Amino acid sequence: MNQTAEQGVSISAGDLAGLVGGRLVGDPSVVLNTIAGIDEGTEGALTFIRAQPFADRWAGSACSAALVTEGIDVPDHDPASRALIFVTNADHALVRVLRAIDPGHALPPAGIHQLAVVDPTAEIHPTARIGPGCVVGAGTSIGANSTLIASVFVGSACSIGNDTIVHPNATISDRVRVGSRCVIFSGSVLGADGFGFIPATTTTHAIKIPQIGTVAIGDDVEIGACCTVDRAKLGATTVGNHVKLDDHVHIGHNCIVEDDVVICGCTAVGGSVTIGKGTLIGGAVVISDQATIGSYAKIAGGAMVLDRVPANETYAGIPAMPARTALANHGAMRSLASFMRSTEKTLKKLTENCPENNDSR
Amino acid sequence: MNQTAEQGVSISAGDLAGLVGGRLVGDPSVVLNTIAGIDEGTEGALTFIRAQPFADRWAGSACSAALVTEGIDVPDHDPASRALIFVTNADHALVRVLRAIDPGHALPPAGIHQLAVVDPTAEIHPTARIGPGCVVGAGTSIGANSTLIASVFVGSACSIGNDTIVHPNATISDRVRVGSRCVIFSGSVLGADGFGFIPATTTTHAIKIPQIGTVAIGDDVEIGACCTVDRAKLGATTVGNHVKLDDHVHIGHNCIVEDDVVICGCTAVGGSVTIGKGTLIGGAVVISDQATIGSYAKIAGGAMVLDRVPANETYAGIPAMPARTALANHGAMRSLASFMRSTEKTLKKLTENCPENNDSR
Amino acid sequence: MNQTAEQGVSISAGDLAGLVGGRLVGDPSVVLNTIAGIDEGTEGALTFIRAQPFADRWAGSACSAALVTEGIDVPDHDPASRALIFVTNADHALVRVLRAIDPGHALPPAGIHQLAVVDPTAEIHPTARIGPGCVVGAGTSIGANSTLIASVFVGSACSIGNDTIVHPNATISDRVRVGSRCVIFSGSVLGADGFGFIPATTTTHAIKIPQIGTVAIGDDVEIGACCTVDRAKLGATTVGNHVKLDDHVHIGHNCIVEDDVVICGCTAVGGSVTIGKGTLIGGAVVISDQATIGSYAKIAGGAMVLDRVPANETYAGIPAMPARTALANHGAMRSLASFMRSTEKTLKKLTENCPENNDSR
Repeated sequence: MNQTAEQGVSISAGDLAGLVGGRLVGDPSVVLNTIAGIDEGTEGALTFIRAQPFADRWAGSACSAALVTEGIDVPDHDPASRALIFVTNADHALVRVLRAIDPGHALPPAGIHQLAVVDPTAEIHPTARIGPGCVVGAGTSIGANSTLIASVFVGSACSIGNDTIVHPNATISDRVRVGSRCVIFSGSVLGADGFGFIPATTTTHAIKIPQIGTVAIGDDVEIGACCTVDRAKLGATTVGNHVKLDDHVHIGHNCIVEDDVVICGCTAVGGSVTIGKGTLIGGAVVISDQATIGSYAKIAGGAMVLDRVPANETYAGIPAMPARTALANHGAMRSLASFMRSTEKTLKKLTENCPENNDSR
Repeated sequence: MNQTAEQGVSISAGDLAGLVGGRLVGDPSVVLNTIAGIDEGTEGALTFIRAQPFADRWAGSACSAALVTEGIDVPDHDPASRALIFVTNADHALVRVLRAIDPGHALPPAGIHQLAVVDPTAEIHPTARIGPGCVVGAGTSIGANSTLIASVFVGSACSIGNDTIVHPNATISDRVRVGSRCVIFSGSVLGADGFGFIPATTTTHAIKIPQIGTVAIGDDVEIGACCTVDRAKLGATTVGNHVKLDDHVHIGHNCIVEDDVVICGCTAVGGSVTIGKGTLIGGAVVISDQATIGSYAKIAGGAMVLDRVPANETYAGIPAMPARTALANHGAMRSLASFMRSTEKTLKKLTENCPENNDSR
Repeated sequence: MNQTAEQGVSISAGDLAGLVGGRLVGDPSVVLNTIAGIDEGTEGALTFIRAQPFADRWAGSACSAALVTEGIDVPDHDPASRALIFVTNADHALVRVLRAIDPGHALPPAGIHQLAVVDPTAEIHPTARIGPGCVVGAGTSIGANSTLIASVFVGSACSIGNDTIVHPNATISDRVRVGSRCVIFSGSVLGADGFGFIPATTTTHAIKIPQIGTVAIGDDVEIGACCTVDRAKLGATTVGNHVKLDDHVHIGHNCIVEDDVVICGCTAVGGSVTIGKGTLIGGAVVISDQATIGSYAKIAGGAMVLDRVPANETYAGIPAMPARTALANHGAMRSLASFMRSTEKTLKKLTENCPENNDSR
């Protein structure tokens, strides 16, 4: 498979079936040069059929080929002119195709760029790539094949595992630990001080509580752009393995984010919050200090969690509550004012007209 | 007009009338050295009268001169000691005055700073200004008069048009396109990966869906500080011409933001959202994945859009609804708990006292 | 007190009493090597007793020593094996302990790093520390003992006081003033242009209103990571002394944030907002343009302030209202839909069954 232009690829259906280990039903010579939804694609497009409703639109689609999850029946397929490639899971097969054509990010060569500043006591693996403008502090270790693309700051006494990529203008402060196979996007800051103050009074100023802990990021973690994970007061703010954070996510000091948590963009997690394993959190969620989220919970976008969400539950709304209730309340909110007006009017009429009421007042 | 101190200017009313092409009524020798609201300004202040209520306060104002939109009647003006300058549009004239006295941002000289790192295959226009600490990748082009002030990262295969200014510590990732006459403020990140994962299950980890698309920014776009515009899964996340983003705005992958859209600060736009031409979006708005906003819609600050907003409509609230309804519901919210308590009490009394009810239960 | 490992310390109770100026009751030779909550700590842990309920758990705690606010009675203390250290205020004493063991942030040496770019007209105090990759513009002054750690941009005509620390990848734009003893964390941007435009119409594009003012930050201010404080249109966006901002806080143009204000993470403050002295604002709060917050007000996390909050009041909710009302309404929200359904049903039944109502319709 060779990439012929920006995001343009050219591959035959036969070769594609080989790439994904799929079963071809149709013309192996069909040429594919783009990927598209089943209704949007035109000739040359590869699409994907992950459920029956998509299969039913195949006959009317202009796409030339489709990845199909085995077991789905695709009616009215013309194998003479088009191609279906049956695979165990169409979504996973698509990921394999995307990986094959992914141009990736341009990385600097192995070694330390002459305009990087690396403390002589830092241990940089010979295969690591330290791009221009990067700064690495004393006693910090950076593992095999890890990359600081450019203008990345890594402080003192940090450790970064193997195969981790840190994008330009990200900041990793002193003593922060980052695991292997992580990706940290630009503008993110790991290890700024947690926000701890003895509050001001009318006669005293706020007093800073030193944040002498650190941040520990697991393996296979992805952190989007402009995220912040704050340093613990004591111990470490912890982000587990396989955690994925979208952009603008804030993780306060002393949080524990367990393995496999996914958090969408612009979500604010207060201090000392525990988020259980496998939890899925939507965008722009607000989680109050010291809240606890049980494992495999789901929290809808825009929710505000005040205290706790039980494991395996789906919560939504402000304040967060079981999603079914929240959805009903959202609907109710749309007519709240008119409901209140009409209810008050009806109550007034009933009260006036009911003689027993008048008597009993 | 010469700037005599920080934000301090000194110009005569006569010269100012010339600068804005206005009609002077009053003393041309009045000296102006600051700009202020009609009620706040003191002697030497230039103010602006864009509507009748302001005109009615002119006699009681201490300001020395005013830009007045033609057609407005300004009572009790003393032309012997003060100056009115009538113009087609006082707001536009004020912009001309501000432009004339704007000290602007200090820019590095044309050429490539010796501490910038520019790939030899990049095409940098000779008039472009590449400041210290900047990094420009292979195959990237930067047009005439464009400026990377300092510590800006521009990846490989990017293009930046003419007369665009990128502020320090901004990041433009590989293959991203930025048009002409744009301004991108510090800390912003264009082209971080879109947030696409096949979710984790109890037995599998999340699987990253490669984001092989890019970001395309039009002409005359302004992007505030600490914004993120994410790379598309396929194709391009698109920001049209004359779009203005305030700080901390997040645009998810595969969004289409059409021309002339204005988005205030801290607004989160999910993935695959379409925002129609000329839409005005307030601050801290949350827009869910795949929502569509019609052209020239207005969305109030703090709203949460779940699915769609029709063209030309003004929406507000959580969830977003027509603004008039939202405003009424906001008012209703303030007394919700007391309303519910009193309603329940009244209903209980009515039910108890009404014999027909008791019979029919 | 010597730090023996990451956050690990070893000190005797006797030495600790000396450090905090406390009154020791117990064994001075007890060795302390960590700090923990009264219920979590094990042998070797120092804990703190700031209120009676903690004191009552002392006998059952495994901690070896505690800082105790004088006046609190601690039952069942065994002075032969454990240590209590009575102090005026246990919280303040803990801060002193944390300060003593705080490893701090690694700073570059005094002077200008050879890979920093400092304009020859800038005035850098000989004791200031300008790390690698920093850029300092013309006419800027940086005071005694102030530090730009690395890759910090400070524009032209800025001033930074004494003993201020700016973390890597922060940006301070032209003409911005920062006081003494401030800390500015990574990714923050002071002095991006305020968001001022004459709105687009169906026939014209938005017109930028030049933002020719600046930003003035007081003394003893802490600004978290990825914050933005925007440049004023005229004059200065002002942040007073002892103000503390958490991460991702946005302060719009022309705001006045008075002394001793504390703002938690992800709070969005619109343009021309005034926040009175000593106000405490929670996380993810939204404050609309031109709102005013009175002195010593408190605003709960997630609130949306549309116009004003009176001095000394505690507000919460969307829209913000007195916290007691908001709390009640939050509770009411949880059952809104079911309340509306049951109310409508009851009203229908009452109306049908009450003959007077039927007559009067």
